[in-house]
Amino acid sequence: MFHHQIEPRFSDTDGLGHIGNTAYPTWFEHARMPIFRIFHPSLELASWPLIVARVAIDYRAQCHWGLPVDIQTGIGRIGNSSFQAIQTAQQNGVEVARSEAVLIHFDYASEQSLPIPDHIRQQLEPHIVEAGSN
Amino acid sequence: MFHHQIEPRFSDTDGLGHIGNTAYPTWFEHARMPIFRIFHPSLELASWPLIVARVAIDYRAQCHWGLPVDIQTGIGRIGNSSFQAIQTAQQNGVEVARSEAVLIHFDYASEQSLPIPDHIRQQLEPHIVEAGSN
Amino acid sequence: MFHHQIEPRFSDTDGLGHIGNTAYPTWFEHARMPIFRIFHPSLELASWPLIVARVAIDYRAQCHWGLPVDIQTGIGRIGNSSFQAIQTAQQNGVEVARSEAVLIHFDYASEQSLPIPDHIRQQLEPHIVEAGSN
Amino acid sequence: MFHHQIEPRFSDTDGLGHIGNTAYPTWFEHARMPIFRIFHPSLELASWPLIVARVAIDYRAQCHWGLPVDIQTGIGRIGNSSFQAIQTAQQNGVEVARSEAVLIHFDYASEQSLPIPDHIRQQLEPHIVEAGSN
Repeated sequence: MFHHQIEPRFSDTDGLGHIGNTAYPTWFEHARMPIFRIFHPSLELASWPLIVARVAIDYRAQCHWGLPVDIQTGIGRIGNSSFQAIQTAQQNGVEVARSEAVLIHFDYASEQSLPIPDHIRQQLEPHIVEAGSN
Repeated sequence: MFHHQIEPRFSDTDGLGHIGNTAYPTWFEHARMPIFRIFHPSLELASWPLIVARVAIDYRAQCHWGLPVDIQTGIGRIGNSSFQAIQTAQQNGVEVARSEAVLIHFDYASEQSLPIPDHIRQQLEPHIVEAGSN
Repeated sequence: MFHHQIEPRFSDTDGLGHIGNTAYPTWFEHARMPIFRIFHPSLELASWPLIVARVAIDYRAQCHWGLPVDIQTGIGRIGNSSFQAIQTAQQNGVEVARSEAVLIHFDYASEQSLPIPDHIRQQLEPHIVEAGSN
Repeated sequence: MFHHQIEPRFSDTDGLGHIGNTAYPTWFEHARMPIFRIFHPSLELASWPLIVARVAIDYRAQCHWGLPVDIQTGIGRIGNSSFQAIQTAQQNGVEVARSEAVLIHFDYASEQSLPIPDHIRQQLEPHIVEAGSN
Protein backbone atom coordinates (compact mmCIF):
# COMPACT_ATOMS: atom_id res chain seq x y z
CA MET A 1 0.00 0.00 0.00
CA PHE A 2 1.03 3.57 -0.53
CA HIS A 3 1.35 5.82 2.49
CA HIS A 4 0.89 9.58 2.61
CA GLN A 5 0.71 11.94 5.55
CA ILE A 6 -1.72 14.86 5.26
CA GLU A 7 -1.57 18.03 7.31
CA PRO A 8 -5.12 19.25 7.86
CA ARG A 9 -5.43 22.92 6.96
CA PHE A 10 -7.39 25.35 9.12
CA SER A 11 -9.72 25.72 6.14
CA ASP A 12 -10.53 21.98 6.37
CA THR A 13 -12.41 22.58 9.62
CA ASP A 14 -16.11 23.38 9.65
CA GLY A 15 -18.50 25.18 11.95
CA LEU A 16 -18.89 22.08 14.12
CA GLY A 17 -15.29 22.45 15.33
CA HIS A 18 -14.02 19.33 13.55
CA ILE A 19 -12.78 18.50 10.07
CA GLY A 20 -15.66 18.96 7.64
CA ASN A 21 -16.88 15.89 5.74
CA THR A 22 -16.20 17.73 2.47
CA ALA A 23 -12.46 18.08 3.23
CA TYR A 24 -11.74 14.34 3.23
CA PRO A 25 -12.30 13.89 -0.52
CA THR A 26 -9.55 16.45 -1.16
CA TRP A 27 -7.20 14.48 1.13
CA PHE A 28 -7.94 11.08 -0.37
CA GLU A 29 -7.51 12.56 -3.85
CA HIS A 30 -4.15 14.04 -2.91
CA ALA A 31 -3.03 10.68 -1.46
CA ARG A 32 -3.74 8.99 -4.81
CA MET A 33 -0.68 10.79 -6.19
CA PRO A 34 1.40 7.57 -6.50
CA ILE A 35 -1.38 6.11 -8.68
CA PHE A 36 -1.43 9.28 -10.77
CA ARG A 37 2.34 8.91 -11.29
CA ILE A 38 1.88 5.33 -12.53
CA PHE A 39 -0.67 6.39 -15.15
CA HIS A 40 0.92 9.70 -16.02
CA PRO A 41 4.50 10.23 -14.85
CA SER A 42 4.66 13.82 -16.16
CA LEU A 43 1.57 14.84 -14.12
CA GLU A 44 0.79 17.25 -17.02
CA LEU A 45 -2.81 18.37 -16.68
CA ALA A 46 -3.20 19.11 -20.40
CA SER A 47 -2.85 15.38 -21.17
CA TRP A 48 -4.44 13.97 -18.00
CA PRO A 49 -5.62 10.37 -18.52
CA LEU A 50 -8.02 9.66 -15.63
CA ILE A 51 -11.55 10.62 -14.64
CA VAL A 52 -13.38 9.91 -11.37
CA ALA A 53 -16.53 7.77 -11.74
CA ARG A 54 -17.44 7.26 -8.11
CA VAL A 55 -16.29 8.19 -4.62
CA ALA A 56 -17.77 6.62 -1.48
CA ILE A 57 -16.51 7.68 1.93
CA ASP A 58 -17.45 6.17 5.29
CA TYR A 59 -16.88 8.48 8.22
CA ARG A 60 -15.88 6.43 11.27
CA ALA A 61 -14.78 8.96 13.88
CA GLN A 62 -14.45 12.71 14.18
CA CYS A 63 -11.15 14.10 12.99
CA HIS A 64 -9.59 17.28 14.34
CA TRP A 65 -7.28 20.03 13.22
CA GLY A 66 -3.77 20.21 14.66
CA LEU A 67 -2.67 16.57 14.22
CA PRO A 68 -1.48 14.86 11.02
CA VAL A 69 -3.60 12.26 9.21
CA ASP A 70 -2.08 9.08 7.75
CA ILE A 71 -3.59 7.77 4.56
CA GLN A 72 -3.01 4.25 3.25
CA THR A 73 -3.89 3.67 -0.40
CA GLY A 74 -4.33 0.30 -2.09
CA ILE A 75 -5.83 -0.96 -5.33
CA GLY A 76 -9.09 -2.93 -5.45
CA ARG A 77 -10.68 -4.47 -8.52
CA ILE A 78 -9.02 -3.69 -11.84
CA GLY A 79 -11.42 -3.86 -14.78
CA ASN A 80 -10.87 -3.30 -18.48
CA SER A 81 -10.67 0.48 -18.25
CA SER A 82 -11.43 1.23 -14.59
CA PHE A 83 -9.97 0.40 -11.19
CA GLN A 84 -10.76 0.96 -7.53
CA ALA A 85 -8.61 2.97 -5.13
CA ILE A 86 -9.22 1.77 -1.56
CA GLN A 87 -8.03 4.10 1.17
CA THR A 88 -8.10 4.54 4.92
CA ALA A 89 -7.38 7.64 6.99
CA GLN A 90 -6.05 7.43 10.54
CA GLN A 91 -5.45 10.19 13.05
CA ASN A 92 -3.63 9.48 16.29
CA GLY A 93 -4.04 5.73 15.73
CA VAL A 94 -7.80 5.90 15.16
CA GLU A 95 -9.36 5.15 11.78
CA VAL A 96 -11.40 8.24 10.96
CA ALA A 97 -12.57 7.38 7.43
CA ARG A 98 -12.43 4.88 4.57
CA SER A 99 -12.77 5.71 0.90
CA GLU A 100 -13.47 3.66 -2.19
CA ALA A 101 -13.06 5.52 -5.46
CA VAL A 102 -13.51 4.25 -8.99
CA LEU A 103 -11.31 5.89 -11.62
CA ILE A 104 -11.48 5.38 -15.37
CA HIS A 105 -8.61 5.50 -17.85
CA PHE A 106 -10.03 8.23 -20.06
CA ASP A 107 -9.35 10.24 -23.17
CA TYR A 108 -10.67 13.78 -22.60
CA ALA A 109 -10.47 14.70 -26.30
CA SER A 110 -12.86 11.96 -27.45
CA GLU A 111 -14.59 11.61 -24.04
CA GLN A 112 -14.10 7.83 -24.27
CA SER A 113 -12.78 5.35 -21.75
CA LEU A 114 -9.54 3.59 -22.70
CA PRO A 115 -8.31 0.08 -21.81
CA ILE A 116 -5.72 0.04 -19.03
CA PRO A 117 -2.45 -0.92 -20.78
CA ASP A 118 -0.57 -3.97 -19.52
CA HIS A 119 2.47 -2.03 -18.36
CA ILE A 120 0.25 0.06 -16.08
CA ARG A 121 -1.72 -2.96 -14.91
CA GLN A 122 1.55 -4.59 -13.86
CA GLN A 123 2.49 -1.57 -11.78
CA LEU A 124 -0.93 -1.50 -10.07
CA GLU A 125 -1.10 -5.21 -9.23
CA PRO A 126 1.50 -5.27 -6.43
CA HIS A 127 -0.71 -2.78 -4.58
CA ILE A 128 -3.93 -4.79 -4.71
CA VAL A 129 -5.62 -5.14 -1.33
CA GLU A 130 -8.72 -7.15 -0.51
CA ALA A 131 -11.51 -5.24 -2.20
CA GLY A 132 -13.98 -3.50 0.05
CA SER A 133 -17.70 -4.14 -0.08
CA ASN A 134 -18.57 -0.51 -0.71
CA MET B 1 -38.48 16.19 -3.39
CA PHE B 2 -36.70 19.35 -2.49
CA HIS B 3 -35.21 21.45 -5.25
CA HIS B 4 -32.22 23.76 -5.04
CA GLN B 5 -30.31 25.59 -7.74
CA ILE B 6 -26.54 25.90 -7.26
CA GLU B 7 -24.31 28.42 -8.99
CA PRO B 8 -20.91 26.82 -9.55
CA ARG B 9 -18.14 29.08 -8.31
CA PHE B 10 -14.94 29.61 -10.30
CA SER B 11 -13.18 27.93 -7.39
CA ASP B 12 -15.23 24.76 -8.01
CA THR B 13 -13.35 24.17 -11.26
CA ASP B 14 -10.17 22.13 -11.36
CA GLY B 15 -7.13 21.92 -13.58
CA LEU B 16 -8.94 19.69 -16.06
CA GLY B 17 -11.18 22.60 -17.09
CA HIS B 18 -14.34 21.14 -15.56
CA ILE B 19 -15.96 21.10 -12.13
CA GLY B 20 -13.71 19.14 -9.78
CA ASN B 21 -15.08 15.95 -8.24
CA THR B 22 -14.39 17.40 -4.78
CA ALA B 23 -16.75 20.36 -5.35
CA TYR B 24 -19.90 18.25 -5.69
CA PRO B 25 -19.99 17.17 -2.02
CA THR B 26 -20.15 20.86 -1.03
CA TRP B 27 -23.10 21.36 -3.40
CA PHE B 28 -25.04 18.30 -2.28
CA GLU B 29 -24.45 19.30 1.34
CA HIS B 30 -25.75 22.80 0.70
CA ALA B 31 -28.84 21.38 -1.03
CA ARG B 32 -29.65 19.36 2.11
CA MET B 33 -30.61 22.66 3.79
CA PRO B 34 -34.37 21.83 3.85
CA ILE B 35 -33.53 18.63 5.77
CA PHE B 36 -31.35 20.61 8.16
CA ARG B 37 -34.28 22.96 8.77
CA ILE B 38 -36.55 20.01 9.64
CA PHE B 39 -34.10 18.69 12.25
CA HIS B 40 -32.90 22.05 13.51
CA PRO B 41 -35.01 25.07 12.55
CA SER B 42 -32.66 27.57 14.20
CA LEU B 43 -29.67 26.30 12.16
CA GLU B 44 -27.53 27.16 15.22
CA LEU B 45 -24.18 25.43 14.86
CA ALA B 46 -23.55 25.30 18.62
CA SER B 47 -26.46 22.86 19.03
CA TRP B 48 -26.18 21.07 15.67
CA PRO B 49 -27.91 17.65 15.80
CA LEU B 50 -26.61 15.74 12.75
CA ILE B 51 -23.40 14.02 11.71
CA VAL B 52 -22.48 12.55 8.33
CA ALA B 53 -21.78 8.80 8.37
CA ARG B 54 -21.35 8.16 4.66
CA VAL B 55 -21.36 9.97 1.33
CA ALA B 56 -21.30 8.11 -2.01
CA ILE B 57 -21.30 10.08 -5.25
CA ASP B 58 -21.56 8.69 -8.77
CA TYR B 59 -20.21 11.00 -11.43
CA ARG B 60 -22.23 10.56 -14.63
CA ALA B 61 -21.12 13.38 -16.91
CA GLN B 62 -18.69 16.26 -16.85
CA CYS B 63 -20.09 19.47 -15.40
CA HIS B 64 -18.89 22.93 -16.37
CA TRP B 65 -18.61 26.37 -14.89
CA GLY B 66 -20.92 29.12 -16.16
CA LEU B 67 -24.27 27.30 -16.02
CA PRO B 68 -26.45 26.63 -12.96
CA VAL B 69 -26.89 23.13 -11.51
CA ASP B 70 -30.26 21.82 -10.32
CA ILE B 71 -30.24 19.53 -7.33
CA GLN B 72 -33.20 17.35 -6.34
CA THR B 73 -33.15 15.95 -2.81
CA GLY B 74 -35.29 13.13 -1.47
CA ILE B 75 -35.25 10.87 1.57
CA GLY B 76 -34.34 7.16 1.36
CA ARG B 77 -34.44 4.65 4.20
CA ILE B 78 -35.20 6.05 7.63
CA GLY B 79 -33.74 3.96 10.45
CA ASN B 80 -33.88 4.37 14.20
CA SER B 81 -31.35 7.19 14.34
CA SER B 82 -30.13 7.54 10.76
CA PHE B 83 -31.60 8.31 7.34
CA GLN B 84 -30.50 8.51 3.73
CA ALA B 85 -30.51 11.67 1.63
CA ILE B 86 -30.77 10.75 -2.06
CA GLN B 87 -29.85 13.49 -4.50
CA THR B 88 -29.33 14.12 -8.18
CA ALA B 89 -27.57 17.01 -9.91
CA GLN B 90 -28.51 18.14 -13.40
CA GLN B 91 -26.88 20.74 -15.61
CA ASN B 92 -28.54 21.86 -18.81
CA GLY B 93 -30.93 18.89 -18.64
CA VAL B 94 -28.16 16.29 -18.22
CA GLU B 95 -27.73 14.32 -15.00
CA VAL B 96 -24.14 14.97 -13.95
CA ALA B 97 -24.07 13.20 -10.59
CA ARG B 98 -26.05 11.26 -7.99
CA SER B 99 -25.37 11.25 -4.26
CA GLU B 100 -26.45 9.01 -1.41
CA ALA B 101 -25.57 10.29 2.02
CA VAL B 102 -26.30 8.74 5.40
CA LEU B 103 -26.80 11.17 8.25
CA ILE B 104 -27.19 10.33 11.93
CA HIS B 105 -29.23 12.20 14.53
CA PHE B 106 -26.38 12.90 16.94
CA ASP B 107 -25.57 14.49 20.27
CA TYR B 108 -22.12 16.08 19.98
CA ALA B 109 -21.76 16.51 23.77
CA SER B 110 -22.05 12.78 24.53
CA GLU B 111 -20.94 11.65 21.05
CA GLN B 112 -23.97 9.33 20.92
CA SER B 113 -26.56 8.76 18.23
CA LEU B 114 -30.12 9.72 19.12
CA PRO B 115 -33.43 8.21 17.95
CA ILE B 116 -35.18 10.29 15.29
CA PRO B 117 -38.25 11.75 17.05
CA ASP B 118 -41.66 11.07 15.58
CA HIS B 119 -42.41 14.70 14.74
CA ILE B 120 -39.26 14.81 12.59
CA ARG B 121 -39.96 11.41 11.04
CA GLN B 122 -43.38 12.70 9.99
CA GLN B 123 -41.82 15.67 8.26
CA LEU B 124 -39.29 13.49 6.42
CA GLU B 125 -41.75 10.83 5.22
CA PRO B 126 -43.52 12.91 2.53
CA HIS B 127 -40.14 13.28 0.83
CA ILE B 128 -39.28 9.57 0.65
CA VAL B 129 -38.19 8.47 -2.81
CA GLU B 130 -37.36 4.98 -3.95
CA ALA B 131 -34.12 4.15 -2.17
CA GLY B 132 -31.03 3.88 -4.32
CA SER B 133 -28.85 0.81 -4.46
CA ASN B 134 -25.73 2.69 -3.45
CA MET C 1 -22.48 48.68 -9.46
CA PHE C 2 -23.19 45.04 -10.02
CA HIS C 3 -25.12 43.14 -7.39
CA HIS C 4 -24.92 39.45 -6.62
CA GLN C 5 -26.40 37.43 -3.78
CA ILE C 6 -24.28 34.57 -2.42
CA GLU C 7 -25.60 31.64 -0.41
CA PRO C 8 -22.90 30.62 2.06
CA ARG C 9 -22.28 26.88 1.89
CA PHE C 10 -21.84 24.77 5.02
CA SER C 11 -18.31 24.15 3.78
CA ASP C 12 -17.62 27.91 3.97
CA THR C 13 -17.75 27.74 7.77
CA ASP C 14 -14.66 27.06 9.84
CA GLY C 15 -13.91 25.61 13.24
CA LEU C 16 -14.61 28.94 14.93
CA GLY C 17 -18.32 28.62 14.08
CA HIS C 18 -18.34 31.46 11.57
CA ILE C 19 -17.54 31.86 7.88
CA GLY C 20 -13.84 31.23 7.40
CA ASN C 21 -11.70 34.09 6.10
CA THR C 22 -10.61 31.88 3.19
CA ALA C 23 -14.19 31.49 1.91
CA TYR C 24 -14.67 35.17 1.10
CA PRO C 25 -12.21 35.23 -1.82
CA THR C 26 -14.30 32.52 -3.52
CA TRP C 27 -17.44 34.66 -3.06
CA PHE C 28 -15.89 37.88 -4.31
CA GLU C 29 -14.48 36.02 -7.30
CA HIS C 30 -17.88 34.55 -8.11
CA ALA C 31 -19.48 38.00 -7.86
CA ARG C 32 -17.05 39.32 -10.50
CA MET C 33 -18.99 37.29 -13.08
CA PRO C 34 -20.49 40.40 -14.79
CA ILE C 35 -16.93 41.68 -15.33
CA PHE C 36 -15.89 38.30 -16.71
CA ARG C 37 -18.81 38.50 -19.16
CA ILE C 38 -17.64 41.92 -20.38
CA PHE C 39 -14.12 40.66 -21.12
CA HIS C 40 -15.12 37.22 -22.31
CA PRO C 41 -18.80 36.72 -23.17
CA SER C 42 -18.38 32.99 -23.93
CA LEU C 43 -16.85 32.32 -20.48
CA GLU C 44 -14.75 29.62 -22.23
CA LEU C 45 -11.90 28.66 -19.92
CA ALA C 46 -9.64 27.52 -22.76
CA SER C 47 -9.40 31.13 -24.02
CA TRP C 48 -9.67 32.92 -20.66
CA PRO C 49 -8.27 36.48 -20.89
CA LEU C 50 -7.74 37.59 -17.28
CA ILE C 51 -5.31 36.86 -14.46
CA VAL C 52 -5.44 38.00 -10.84
CA ALA C 53 -2.51 40.18 -9.74
CA ARG C 54 -3.64 41.11 -6.25
CA VAL C 55 -6.48 40.55 -3.81
CA ALA C 56 -6.82 42.51 -0.55
CA ILE C 57 -9.73 41.80 1.77
CA ASP C 58 -10.66 43.71 4.91
CA TYR C 59 -12.76 41.73 7.35
CA ARG C 60 -15.15 44.08 9.15
CA ALA C 61 -17.54 41.81 11.06
CA GLN C 62 -18.10 38.12 11.57
CA CYS C 63 -20.34 36.50 8.99
CA HIS C 64 -22.46 33.45 9.66
CA TRP C 65 -23.92 30.51 7.80
CA GLY C 66 -27.69 30.40 7.18
CA LEU C 67 -28.24 33.91 5.83
CA PRO C 68 -27.51 35.21 2.31
CA VAL C 69 -24.69 37.66 1.61
CA ASP C 70 -25.09 40.60 -0.78
CA ILE C 71 -22.08 41.58 -2.82
CA GLN C 72 -21.76 44.91 -4.63
CA THR C 73 -19.09 45.12 -7.30
CA GLY C 74 -17.71 48.28 -8.87
CA ILE C 75 -14.70 49.23 -10.97
CA GLY C 76 -11.79 51.27 -9.57
CA ARG C 77 -8.77 52.51 -11.50
CA ILE C 78 -8.46 51.32 -15.08
CA GLY C 79 -4.87 51.23 -16.32
CA ASN C 80 -3.39 50.23 -19.65
CA SER C 81 -3.81 46.50 -19.13
CA SER C 82 -5.12 46.19 -15.57
CA PHE C 83 -8.12 47.35 -13.55
CA GLN C 84 -9.41 47.23 -10.00
CA ALA C 85 -12.56 45.44 -8.87
CA ILE C 86 -13.89 47.05 -5.69
CA GLN C 87 -16.41 45.01 -3.75
CA THR C 88 -18.34 44.98 -0.51
CA ALA C 89 -20.16 42.12 1.21
CA GLN C 90 -23.15 42.68 3.47
CA GLN C 91 -25.06 40.21 5.58
CA ASN C 92 -28.29 41.22 7.26
CA GLY C 93 -27.53 44.90 6.58
CA VAL C 94 -24.04 44.78 8.11
CA GLU C 95 -20.91 45.19 6.00
CA VAL C 96 -18.85 42.09 6.74
CA ALA C 97 -15.98 42.60 4.28
CA ARG C 98 -14.48 44.74 1.52
CA SER C 99 -12.29 43.52 -1.30
CA GLU C 100 -10.01 45.22 -3.76
CA ALA C 101 -8.70 43.01 -6.52
CA VAL C 102 -6.42 43.88 -9.41
CA LEU C 103 -6.95 41.89 -12.58
CA ILE C 104 -4.82 41.99 -15.71
CA HIS C 105 -5.94 41.50 -19.30
CA PHE C 106 -3.66 38.58 -20.10
CA ASP C 107 -2.66 36.21 -22.86
CA TYR C 108 -1.96 32.81 -21.28
CA ALA C 109 -0.20 31.47 -24.40
CA SER C 110 2.52 34.13 -24.41
CA GLU C 111 2.20 34.93 -20.66
CA GLN C 112 2.04 38.63 -21.55
CA SER C 113 -0.34 41.33 -20.42
CA LEU C 114 -2.54 42.88 -23.11
CA PRO C 115 -3.93 46.42 -23.42
CA ILE C 116 -7.59 46.70 -22.45
CA PRO C 117 -9.42 47.35 -25.75
CA ASP C 118 -11.58 50.46 -26.03
CA HIS C 119 -14.85 48.57 -26.43
CA ILE C 120 -14.21 46.81 -23.10
CA ARG C 121 -13.07 50.03 -21.41
CA GLN C 122 -16.35 51.63 -22.46
CA GLN C 123 -18.34 48.84 -20.84
CA LEU C 124 -16.34 49.08 -17.61
CA GLU C 125 -16.51 52.86 -17.23
CA PRO C 126 -20.20 53.16 -16.23
CA HIS C 127 -19.38 50.96 -13.23
CA ILE C 128 -16.50 53.04 -11.88
CA VAL C 129 -16.83 53.82 -8.17
CA GLU C 130 -14.57 55.98 -6.07
CA ALA C 131 -11.33 54.03 -5.85
CA GLY C 132 -10.42 52.59 -2.49
CA SER C 133 -7.19 53.35 -0.72
CA ASN C 134 -6.14 49.72 -0.46
CA MET D 1 11.44 33.44 9.83
CA PHE D 2 9.34 30.35 10.02
CA HIS D 3 9.48 27.91 7.12
CA HIS D 4 6.76 25.54 5.99
CA GLN D 5 6.50 23.37 2.91
CA ILE D 6 3.03 23.00 1.37
CA GLU D 7 1.98 20.22 -0.96
CA PRO D 8 -0.56 21.64 -3.40
CA ARG D 9 -3.65 19.45 -3.57
CA PHE D 10 -5.32 18.59 -6.86
CA SER D 11 -8.30 20.54 -5.54
CA ASP D 12 -6.12 23.68 -5.34
CA THR D 13 -6.00 23.84 -9.14
CA ASP D 14 -8.58 25.75 -11.13
CA GLY D 15 -10.00 25.60 -14.63
CA LEU D 16 -7.06 27.60 -16.01
CA GLY D 17 -4.72 24.66 -15.36
CA HIS D 18 -2.79 26.39 -12.59
CA ILE D 19 -3.23 26.87 -8.84
CA GLY D 20 -6.30 29.00 -8.27
CA ASN D 21 -5.85 32.40 -6.62
CA THR D 22 -8.31 31.33 -3.90
CA ALA D 23 -6.10 28.40 -2.81
CA TYR D 24 -3.18 30.56 -1.66
CA PRO D 25 -5.00 32.05 1.35
CA THR D 26 -5.51 28.50 2.68
CA TRP D 27 -1.77 27.82 2.31
CA PHE D 28 -0.62 31.04 3.93
CA GLU D 29 -3.05 30.46 6.78
CA HIS D 30 -1.73 26.95 7.31
CA ALA D 31 1.85 28.25 7.33
CA ARG D 32 0.95 30.63 10.17
CA MET D 33 0.78 27.58 12.46
CA PRO D 34 3.97 28.53 14.41
CA ILE D 35 2.34 31.89 15.21
CA PHE D 36 -0.84 30.13 16.29
CA ARG D 37 1.25 27.95 18.64
CA ILE D 38 2.80 31.05 20.22
CA PHE D 39 -0.60 32.58 20.97
CA HIS D 40 -2.39 29.35 21.78
CA PRO D 41 -0.19 26.31 22.42
CA SER D 42 -3.15 23.93 22.85
CA LEU D 43 -4.56 24.87 19.42
CA GLU D 44 -8.02 24.29 20.98
CA LEU D 45 -10.62 25.87 18.70
CA ALA D 46 -13.13 26.40 21.52
CA SER D 47 -10.80 28.96 23.12
CA TRP D 48 -9.20 30.35 19.95
CA PRO D 49 -7.69 33.82 20.58
CA LEU D 50 -7.12 35.33 17.12
CA ILE D 51 -9.25 36.82 14.35
CA VAL D 52 -8.20 37.87 10.86
CA ALA D 53 -8.69 41.59 10.10
CA ARG D 54 -7.08 41.78 6.68
CA VAL D 55 -5.37 39.62 4.08
CA ALA D 56 -3.61 41.08 1.02
CA ILE D 57 -1.96 38.76 -1.48
CA ASP D 58 0.17 39.75 -4.47
CA TYR D 59 0.36 37.12 -7.16
CA ARG D 60 3.77 37.26 -8.82
CA ALA D 61 3.94 34.16 -11.03
CA GLN D 62 1.76 31.22 -11.93
CA CYS D 63 2.07 28.26 -9.61
CA HIS D 64 1.44 24.68 -10.67
CA TRP D 65 0.31 21.41 -9.18
CA GLY D 66 2.85 18.61 -8.71
CA LEU D 67 5.69 20.55 -7.04
CA PRO D 68 5.95 21.63 -3.39
CA VAL D 69 5.67 25.27 -2.34
CA ASP D 70 7.94 26.80 0.30
CA ILE D 71 6.42 29.43 2.55
CA GLN D 72 8.49 31.80 4.69
CA THR D 73 6.63 33.58 7.47
CA GLY D 74 7.82 36.61 9.41
CA ILE D 75 6.28 39.18 11.70
CA GLY D 76 5.72 42.80 10.63
CA ARG D 77 4.38 45.61 12.78
CA ILE D 78 3.18 44.64 16.24
CA GLY D 79 0.54 47.00 17.62
CA ASN D 80 -1.34 47.00 20.89
CA SER D 81 -3.66 44.14 20.00
CA SER D 82 -2.81 43.36 16.37
CA PHE D 83 0.20 42.26 14.36
CA GLN D 84 1.17 41.62 10.76
CA ALA D 85 2.19 38.25 9.34
CA ILE D 86 4.38 38.75 6.27
CA GLN D 87 4.80 35.73 4.05
CA THR D 88 6.27 34.67 0.74
CA ALA D 89 5.59 31.55 -1.31
CA GLN D 90 8.21 30.06 -3.64
CA GLN D 91 7.90 27.18 -6.06
CA ASN D 92 10.95 25.76 -7.75
CA GLY D 93 12.98 28.80 -6.69
CA VAL D 94 10.50 31.35 -8.09
CA GLU D 95 8.50 33.65 -5.83
CA VAL D 96 4.88 33.01 -6.77
CA ALA D 97 3.11 35.15 -4.16
CA ARG D 98 3.48 37.43 -1.15
CA SER D 99 0.94 37.84 1.63
CA GLU D 100 0.42 40.42 4.34
CA ALA D 101 -2.17 39.51 6.93
CA VAL D 102 -3.29 41.45 9.97
CA LEU D 103 -4.45 39.37 12.92
CA ILE D 104 -6.02 40.63 16.12
CA HIS D 105 -5.72 39.13 19.59
CA PHE D 106 -9.43 38.62 20.21
CA ASP D 107 -11.93 37.38 22.75
CA TYR D 108 -14.76 35.68 20.88
CA ALA D 109 -17.08 35.67 23.91
CA SER D 110 -17.11 39.46 24.30
CA GLU D 111 -16.18 40.16 20.64
CA GLN D 112 -13.46 42.54 21.87
CA SER D 113 -9.83 42.87 20.91
CA LEU D 114 -7.31 42.12 23.64
CA PRO D 115 -3.82 43.60 24.24
CA ILE D 116 -1.01 41.30 23.16
CA PRO D 117 0.61 40.13 26.42
CA ASP D 118 4.32 40.76 26.92
CA HIS D 119 5.28 37.08 27.00
CA ILE D 120 3.72 36.62 23.54
CA ARG D 121 5.26 39.85 22.23
CA GLN D 122 8.67 38.56 23.29
CA GLN D 123 8.16 35.36 21.34
CA LEU D 124 7.05 37.26 18.22
CA GLU D 125 9.86 39.84 18.20
CA PRO D 126 12.72 37.52 17.11
CA HIS D 127 10.71 36.85 13.93
CA ILE D 128 10.21 40.49 12.91
CA VAL D 129 11.15 41.18 9.29
CA GLU D 130 11.18 44.51 7.53
CA ALA D 131 7.51 45.40 7.22
CA GLY D 132 6.01 45.39 3.75
CA SER D 133 4.33 48.40 2.22
CA ASN D 134 1.06 46.61 1.66
